[in-house]
Amino acid sequence: MDVEQKYFSNISSRERAIFEGGISMGALFHQFIGTPVSPKSSKSLEKSMEESLKLQPCIKKVSVLIDLEKLKDVNTEFDYVSLGGDMLDVKILSEFNGLQAHIRMKFIEDLQYPLMYIEDIIEP
Amino acid sequence: MDVEQKYFSNISSRERAIFEGGISMGALFHQFIGTPVSPKSSKSLEKSMEESLKLQPCIKKVSVLIDLEKLKDVNTEFDYVSLGGDMLDVKILSEFNGLQAHIRMKFIEDLQYPLMYIEDIIEP
Amino acid sequence: MDVEQKYFSNISSRERAIFEGGISMGALFHQFIGTPVSPKSSKSLEKSMEESLKLQPCIKKVSVLIDLEKLKDVNTEFDYVSLGGDMLDVKILSEFNGLQAHIRMKFIEDLQYPLMYIEDIIEP
Amino acid sequence: MDVEQKYFSNISSRERAIFEGGISMGALFHQFIGTPVSPKSSKSLEKSMEESLKLQPCIKKVSVLIDLEKLKDVNTEFDYVSLGGDMLDVKILSEFNGLQAHIRMKFIEDLQYPLMYIEDIIEP
Repeated sequence: MDVEQKYFSNISSRERAIFEGGISMGALFHQFIGTPVSPKSSKSLEKSMEESLKLQPCIKKVSVLIDLEKLKDVNTEFDYVSLGGDMLDVKILSEFNGLQAHIRMKFIEDLQYPLMYIEDIIEP
Repeated sequence: MDVEQKYFSNISSRERAIFEGGISMGALFHQFIGTPVSPKSSKSLEKSMEESLKLQPCIKKVSVLIDLEKLKDVNTEFDYVSLGGDMLDVKILSEFNGLQAHIRMKFIEDLQYPLMYIEDIIEP
Repeated sequence: MDVEQKYFSNISSRERAIFEGGISMGALFHQFIGTPVSPKSSKSLEKSMEESLKLQPCIKKVSVLIDLEKLKDVNTEFDYVSLGGDMLDVKILSEFNGLQAHIRMKFIEDLQYPLMYIEDIIEP
Repeated sequence: MDVEQKYFSNISSRERAIFEGGISMGALFHQFIGTPVSPKSSKSLEKSMEESLKLQPCIKKVSVLIDLEKLKDVNTEFDYVSLGGDMLDVKILSEFNGLQAHIRMKFIEDLQYPLMYIEDIIEP
């Protein structure tokens, strides 16, 4: 089956890169939010978030930063917390036919919200 | 803060509807996959998936169908299964500035994959 | 196959009820944390959490309360939040051979932690 | 606050180890099921599952094996799958006051179910 022809011929390459980037950012957030995390485990969690999301269609690069300062603030006597949206800074590069969409998720303090947006789009 | 102006002025209304629709489809899948489900509980699960995802930016309508036939096939002596991608048929209507993107997730047997794609885009 | 004989003959009925109750409480938390929720959607989310977890082995009753006050506090201009551990109060009744374990998860302000513990055990 | 005294004095050390082990096994399953995985990413996913769950109360050791053979079988043209319960073999060592509970999750083909049970309990 020609998946591209059958399911994606109604959108442009630019729209496709944006669509797949959005999917993967939503996926990343809702898959991993709630995971127990501490300064000791944050590196392995970042790495597995990056490697697993990079498998998705059109995703070329994922970089995840878990805010260690926030981890320190919230640390309880249990020495770990559940991963929350306010601790995450994520960049995803989604590419289709040479068109690159740079997607970002960042916690915006003014909004108290982990905003997902498109930082840059580079045409080939 | 003018969120639209600051974070989204680099994309068109059509692209925005596509982006937010993609986010919410990825979110829905990765939030709910793995939930215990049976014919008895499938209606309440469908409803909460619909109502929770409809809260996300630009999302106007969500409809979720959990395939009861598939539930029957896989039923074990435990009388329930973990919700899987092959049981789901989801439609999301994402709208921005009157521009409507109809997003679909459907399990494609030929691909053995729950494909997310854009069924239709309606300009105002 | 006699599952009970093969896999569970090394523990008492009391231990079995405790074990299955613990599993389901851990499952509930990590399945649903992160779900978008607002005062409008909280009832359907509570119901699907209850109905899905009640499917698990030995679980007879699940009651979930999402704290609407907390929802109000955290509400942003987006009018919803991600479900967090501090908003949840959950009771699970796990029963095996007439032995009932009442499991609770409650956010303890002093600990800043959603503690899971056993409120009561009733022998037949 | 003396958490042990206040919340856990109604159960034995053996029951406590079993309870916490159950919680963490349920947590692991429902946190990570659905994660995209391929032979390339399985090692980092195993590691982050181990390191994150080891943070939970009483958990001393977690070992996760993702079945690469199953990954091969199910591989689609997309070269990855969603992590499913049939691919996982997990051991968790939960310890309280020297009492060790060895918890296991394994997919039992006869049951078509990822069974969680207690392999061994070692008294001090």
